[in-house]
Amino acid sequence: MNIYEKRVRELSAAIKKEKLEALVVSRLEDVGFLTGFHLEGCLLLVGKSEVRAFTSKMLRDHVSSKVPFAETISSDNIRNSVFEFAQKKKIKKIAFEPETVSYLDGLFWKKKGFAAKGGFVSSLRQVKKEAELINVSRSCRIAAEVFPIIKKKIKKGRSEISVARQIEDLMQARGAYGPSFRIIVAFGENSALPHHETSERRLKNNETVLIDYGCVYNFYCSDMTRTFFYGRPSAEFRKVYSIVQEAQKRGIKAVKSGTRASFVDKVVREHISDNGYGQYFIHGTGHGIGLEIHESPLVNSKSKAVLKTGMCLTVEPGIYLKGKFGVRIEDSLLVGKKGSKILTKAG
Amino acid sequence: MNIYEKRVRELSAAIKKEKLEALVVSRLEDVGFLTGFHLEGCLLLVGKSEVRAFTSKMLRDHVSSKVPFAETISSDNIRNSVFEFAQKKKIKKIAFEPETVSYLDGLFWKKKGFAAKGGFVSSLRQVKKEAELINVSRSCRIAAEVFPIIKKKIKKGRSEISVARQIEDLMQARGAYGPSFRIIVAFGENSALPHHETSERRLKNNETVLIDYGCVYNFYCSDMTRTFFYGRPSAEFRKVYSIVQEAQKRGIKAVKSGTRASFVDKVVREHISDNGYGQYFIHGTGHGIGLEIHESPLVNSKSKAVLKTGMCLTVEPGIYLKGKFGVRIEDSLLVGKKGSKILTKAG
Repeated sequence: MNIYEKRVRELSAAIKKEKLEALVVSRLEDVGFLTGFHLEGCLLLVGKSEVRAFTSKMLRDHVSSKVPFAETISSDNIRNSVFEFAQKKKIKKIAFEPETVSYLDGLFWKKKGFAAKGGFVSSLRQVKKEAELINVSRSCRIAAEVFPIIKKKIKKGRSEISVARQIEDLMQARGAYGPSFRIIVAFGENSALPHHETSERRLKNNETVLIDYGCVYNFYCSDMTRTFFYGRPSAEFRKVYSIVQEAQKRGIKAVKSGTRASFVDKVVREHISDNGYGQYFIHGTGHGIGLEIHESPLVNSKSKAVLKTGMCLTVEPGIYLKGKFGVRIEDSLLVGKKGSKILTKAG
Repeated sequence: MNIYEKRVRELSAAIKKEKLEALVVSRLEDVGFLTGFHLEGCLLLVGKSEVRAFTSKMLRDHVSSKVPFAETISSDNIRNSVFEFAQKKKIKKIAFEPETVSYLDGLFWKKKGFAAKGGFVSSLRQVKKEAELINVSRSCRIAAEVFPIIKKKIKKGRSEISVARQIEDLMQARGAYGPSFRIIVAFGENSALPHHETSERRLKNNETVLIDYGCVYNFYCSDMTRTFFYGRPSAEFRKVYSIVQEAQKRGIKAVKSGTRASFVDKVVREHISDNGYGQYFIHGTGHGIGLEIHESPLVNSKSKAVLKTGMCLTVEPGIYLKGKFGVRIEDSLLVGKKGSKILTKAG
């Protein structure tokens, strides 16, 4: 039994536990998680002991070659053929995950008597195992390795975009498929915008440099941010930097199996607030990473998540001083029993 | 009035025509179309004569700097604040586009009394104007320019992936942001799979090479496919190639304002069927391109679309002989009054 069959079995068990007979899985990343392939136009119907793949006639051979453990059913109308199949097989208690489908698809399933019940696949995806750990780790390692190289290449006169491109090339040369999101390179006052759009802005002497980036390796995402000063840092920059650095250190220390995600946020936020910058930390502390760059668990004050061994997530406090500069320090971590492992550390 | 304000006005007019007071616009590409920016976490409420942008507190400054013509309203709960705003302003007839939102979001709007009514923004987006035409044209030109260069570099022993990477680099060197989808490079029998996943497979002598690629330039996508034979083509390859080539030529000739998209598909399909390969043309003839790589109008036998001047779409017939080889030829076109212009032509 390969890892994909194992994942399907785990999902089947979760479905059974909720007294369901089958679950519709259609989100691209979820199908990828269960099959190992990027299969656009493929829907899985996972039952209590078997799985079927529904696809178009064009993709029939493609899908059946990729998912040998599922019966492949092809038609001109995938949704209808799922419904007809369920009728024929007298499968009645079927659910779809409402957070993963469009309103139109959801209405269709509802009308056919399927139940809206979510969280099955995302809950499995939160905890990384075996090959996934290798992929996330490698993805993070690639990103981390690139930082000291790009840091040396960031000079007065270079544009933010040119730096972003070079980061991309350096990651691809190390086996990455591409960046895991639009790389943020922010010079000077741009670093005060957490969602700055990388621009043609050129670096001057004595400015802040913030880079937020990551890559996709074998479908798995990494995410990290580094901030440094190009030139002689002001006293204010040094002060803010050390507050963010200490906040991140405390946050990372708090990460371990059994801890609430909201507690990690609290530890980080308190340190920044205690130092008088609470109002300038304007986002959550972190998020899960995996097949998507943002996935469960969220690490913020409202999060209900409890950390488990195998979860991969970021800790990324920041302080943003509008019109002046911003500092964010972010690492991707693997949650362990007694603590965590920083995945975005080079060497 | 800039082009974005103009687009919002056109949308307002369409809303008024349907006797609505406002429309919720939340799909990332739709918000981008109306603002010119990639604004994650931003929702627009477009009224009969004004537009409001709803976002989180973190993104407030970011959004208001990018969308100066809209009032920016920030809160911890975007959906709720849209509803509260509508109540306060006594705006009653509000619609959301059901094809653009998740089932959970759609349920929320429905419960609040909003109507599900789609197609407003996608209908505007279909017809490209002014700056959009420049962007799509440039995007297509970059892709086209790269083909003769990469063709010369494809040699025995190179892997599909290495070719895909080089195509990406060549496009980025010409100003592209990145590829517009996962580039398909298929050697030999892999070319018979329309959705082949680019692999480590290396090129041998006397094999088919199929490359399907495009780039994103200023947010606009291009799409093209070229097939050629590396070595001495067999009689079968030459025959199949010339059928696909002629089918594409006829399809392109059929493209003009006023023609049904389904007619273009018919012309292409008939030529391939008349030559005995109908069963091997297993996909639609084409699709619209723009902010997304696949958008309206679809060019297939079921399409209800009538072509209009300014639409940009692909014509891409193919013949796939399983286990042997496939041929697909694809260009991106601009629909005109009396015919079309091929955008993916270099020089």
